[in-house]
Amino acid sequence: MSFLYKSEPVRGARWAELFAARAPDIDFHIWPSIGDPAKVRYLAAWQPPENIAETFPNLELVFSIGAGVDQFDLSQIPAHIPVVRMIEPGLVAGMVEYATLAVLAAHRDWLTYAVQQREERWQPMPVRTAGTRRIGVLGMGTMGQAVLDKLRDFGFPCAGWSRTEHRLPGIECFAGEQGLGDFLARSDILVCLLPLTPETRGILSRKLFLQLPPGAVLINLGRGDHLNEDDLLDALDGDHLSAAMLDVCSIEPLPEGHPFWQHPRIMLTPHIASVTQPDTSAEAVLDNIRRHREGLPMVGLVDRVRGY
Amino acid sequence: MSFLYKSEPVRGARWAELFAARAPDIDFHIWPSIGDPAKVRYLAAWQPPENIAETFPNLELVFSIGAGVDQFDLSQIPAHIPVVRMIEPGLVAGMVEYATLAVLAAHRDWLTYAVQQREERWQPMPVRTAGTRRIGVLGMGTMGQAVLDKLRDFGFPCAGWSRTEHRLPGIECFAGEQGLGDFLARSDILVCLLPLTPETRGILSRKLFLQLPPGAVLINLGRGDHLNEDDLLDALDGDHLSAAMLDVCSIEPLPEGHPFWQHPRIMLTPHIASVTQPDTSAEAVLDNIRRHREGLPMVGLVDRVRGY
Repeated sequence: MSFLYKSEPVRGARWAELFAARAPDIDFHIWPSIGDPAKVRYLAAWQPPENIAETFPNLELVFSIGAGVDQFDLSQIPAHIPVVRMIEPGLVAGMVEYATLAVLAAHRDWLTYAVQQREERWQPMPVRTAGTRRIGVLGMGTMGQAVLDKLRDFGFPCAGWSRTEHRLPGIECFAGEQGLGDFLARSDILVCLLPLTPETRGILSRKLFLQLPPGAVLINLGRGDHLNEDDLLDALDGDHLSAAMLDVCSIEPLPEGHPFWQHPRIMLTPHIASVTQPDTSAEAVLDNIRRHREGLPMVGLVDRVRGY
Repeated sequence: MSFLYKSEPVRGARWAELFAARAPDIDFHIWPSIGDPAKVRYLAAWQPPENIAETFPNLELVFSIGAGVDQFDLSQIPAHIPVVRMIEPGLVAGMVEYATLAVLAAHRDWLTYAVQQREERWQPMPVRTAGTRRIGVLGMGTMGQAVLDKLRDFGFPCAGWSRTEHRLPGIECFAGEQGLGDFLARSDILVCLLPLTPETRGILSRKLFLQLPPGAVLINLGRGDHLNEDDLLDALDGDHLSAAMLDVCSIEPLPEGHPFWQHPRIMLTPHIASVTQPDTSAEAVLDNIRRHREGLPMVGLVDRVRGY
């Protein structure tokens, strides 16, 4: 019985150590070494190899290395094999840090001050209290909820929006198509933490931006394809949005000459908001293998119809 | 009996409303309108007027509009008049926001990513967990303690240093000259929130920087005169410090052509980390007036020997 890991090798080496200590009955292989393919029961990957059904006839579980599975072609994974996305405390903590950083930077006008610095202008702007800055988080999964919990504690009025109803203490919760307009109308800083599905692709569009208050800030920490990039540039250049902070792009790396690179009101980072941390993610995967063996529900099991 | 306010007029107008509602027995004047100088019992200012002892013979209390009193010439305020600095929740909350923003920006390499963006380079760097980034806060007054409380909750190993011994749950506390070296040696990100006194003037110097781990980041949210600016430039250019975030400078506004403006590893803001908020500061002042009348200790009473 073996586990095949196909992702970043430094993390893979650490997983190998943790598996040896915690699950010595499972042989651990790091791609492209696969051992006997008939022995592979578990596969973890950012992108699974091709023809996994034929190559690994006894495959029981597929783990995504990331929080999403939008990079998977689920049609290539046989229907009887459960797919599990990564929900682990290290990945959540990184996203909470980054979302807090981006929201505080928006709240405290850091992009404007950065431009003023290079223009050698000392020009203080009014300091607004957190209580007057309304935060909206699109997506109320594990990450969205953790981010909302943290931001609420700074005194920001916080709201969350999700496909289905959620409840979270001290957070105004909106749901579904009919709740989106009211949610957007009260969001001065909008954070996208949605999964990428056919329903959410391109959701960050002109139509959505126009429902935000004038001067709103967009923070996209989901996927590049949530965003219509031309619509964002129009909204910034038309001054309806005041700034955008983007950790993801439709094409990564962002192509040379793309207008995002030099836009003074865009802060761009190369998809580093959060990464799967070696130790905590290995624990999460081992815990899900145990749950699978014992017939318990796995954490992060993907609903193939919903797409996440 | 009257209160004389000599500071930013928009906040003054709000204080006038709050005083009218909460302390109708006190006439409220906004400088340069002073009314009958013999009736002035209370004065609040960033910089007091000259000759206050002669001009206001019945003055009982002087309030600083800011958290510090280093901008006061205490020798011009008669010894029998208590001087009170501003400790109010709005000012503390703003500093907690700004310190968190700056620490997270340092932790998540935002200055480097900002440079890479303008160079059109998509170059992810390893994401370190909060648990591996040691934060040190110089100064454990109301602000320092509130900042440490917030940063600890992100999982950063946090330490504080102060003149005298403090205890704070989950924070490693260092005190006095003999504790400074050990404190600095374990601080990857150093935040200065000290009061400015003869002892702390110029404390952020070459000697101090060399005691920090290589690659440390300096965040100065205290006063510009805490920092030896030439020593900072040397430490950055010699790569001992990796970045600096400065909200204060020795000369404000920073002079034209000063090397801080264009330094790629300095983020500079124009003394906006935190400001005294109208509503909460008026409450704090009214509360101190009540305490003074009732013979209770005032919050923020300045020890003239200590200097804060």
